[in-house]
Amino acid sequence: MGDPKAVVLLSGGLDSTTVLALARSEGFESYALSFRYGQRHTVELEAAARVAAVLGARRHVIADIDLRVFGGSALTDDAISVPHHDSVDELGAGIPVTYVPARNTIFLSFALAWAETLGASDVFIGVNALDYSGYPDCRPEYIEAYERMANLATKAGVEGDQQLKIHMPLVALTKAQTIARGLELGVDYSLTHSCYDPVDGRACGTCDSCLLRIRGFAELGMTDPVMAAV
Amino acid sequence: MGDPKAVVLLSGGLDSTTVLALARSEGFESYALSFRYGQRHTVELEAAARVAAVLGARRHVIADIDLRVFGGSALTDDAISVPHHDSVDELGAGIPVTYVPARNTIFLSFALAWAETLGASDVFIGVNALDYSGYPDCRPEYIEAYERMANLATKAGVEGDQQLKIHMPLVALTKAQTIARGLELGVDYSLTHSCYDPVDGRACGTCDSCLLRIRGFAELGMTDPVMAAV
Repeated sequence: MGDPKAVVLLSGGLDSTTVLALARSEGFESYALSFRYGQRHTVELEAAARVAAVLGARRHVIADIDLRVFGGSALTDDAISVPHHDSVDELGAGIPVTYVPARNTIFLSFALAWAETLGASDVFIGVNALDYSGYPDCRPEYIEAYERMANLATKAGVEGDQQLKIHMPLVALTKAQTIARGLELGVDYSLTHSCYDPVDGRACGTCDSCLLRIRGFAELGMTDPVMAAV
Repeated sequence: MGDPKAVVLLSGGLDSTTVLALARSEGFESYALSFRYGQRHTVELEAAARVAAVLGARRHVIADIDLRVFGGSALTDDAISVPHHDSVDELGAGIPVTYVPARNTIFLSFALAWAETLGASDVFIGVNALDYSGYPDCRPEYIEAYERMANLATKAGVEGDQQLKIHMPLVALTKAQTIARGLELGVDYSLTHSCYDPVDGRACGTCDSCLLRIRGFAELGMTDPVMAAV
């Protein structure tokens, strides 16, 4: 018996990179899964490949799925602009236009498929209920319902010998706490990419995603290395 | 207000074609969704396009997703053969090798995404718990768990103004009952394709899927029109 296997959803951003480092530190042989889903920030996939290699994922798969056929999000629909703000204090309440309909449900369903073929009973996802309070599919009650469904969906669940566990280690952490945890594990955040609306592959510094990580580093008295490089 | 919208999962086979006819007969404006997922029987997508047109789907989308990256099923992995039998009585118990890991979970997650962007609160799926008793993701308790999860996953579910309903009108019907219902609605089953392992686009007559529909027609004293044409 080797280490237990886990599928880790990896966007290449700050959160999912930290999750991969956590899964590795807990002794999981990690299978990193990314998606080319029609996002405007495909540069994140280059970050995902770098991170998977540096953090020792056993395999890294990029699945091609085209969510542009459905539209409905600033991240996948050129007709909807990504919002920019001068300060993190301007981030709105409610569900932002960068929400992609059913994205985590789709991502988890692919993770479930891979877990089943690998014989893995652990899936890791970097959802966070504080920073993304407006995203319905980042809440713990959603993930728990997903887990219940998944255990009815698969051979392992039906045969009862292997229950799927969805790990969400960042769900209750602030961004600063996430970064601090990653730094303890030696994560090099200059490898990551979080920006929703990069220009020439570089972080804009003013979208919701950039603003949240800039604030997280600031709370630790640090500069986001991605911004320092700009 | 026009007719309510529904997303209908449509493989082009006998069951999903009947479901589309049922959704239309119940007054739903239907959005048919098919998948090019690496299945060996891509000819079913031609059947899906014919059926969608003849049965008056408002739109028909074929989403590209590659499940071959995960393997693990006779339908998506060339290294695993589709079983053939002389008689329907030889179909085995347990989960067959034609089971595709997490397939219905993935299909429903795309249906959920499309439903959310359309503002639809109804999804139809042709799962059947009798013929496919070995497929974990064809059981009603699985679909019910999916529905609960979906209502935590989406804007509409969170804001509480629109609960998603997953319809599974065939779940408790025999194949003969499904066919009889479709015939009442005027379905032309010669347009459909169910075979897992077609040769030159024609049904083999000996895979599980062919055998089940042949028996269904036989119980009605009929010949499967797809077989009659061979």
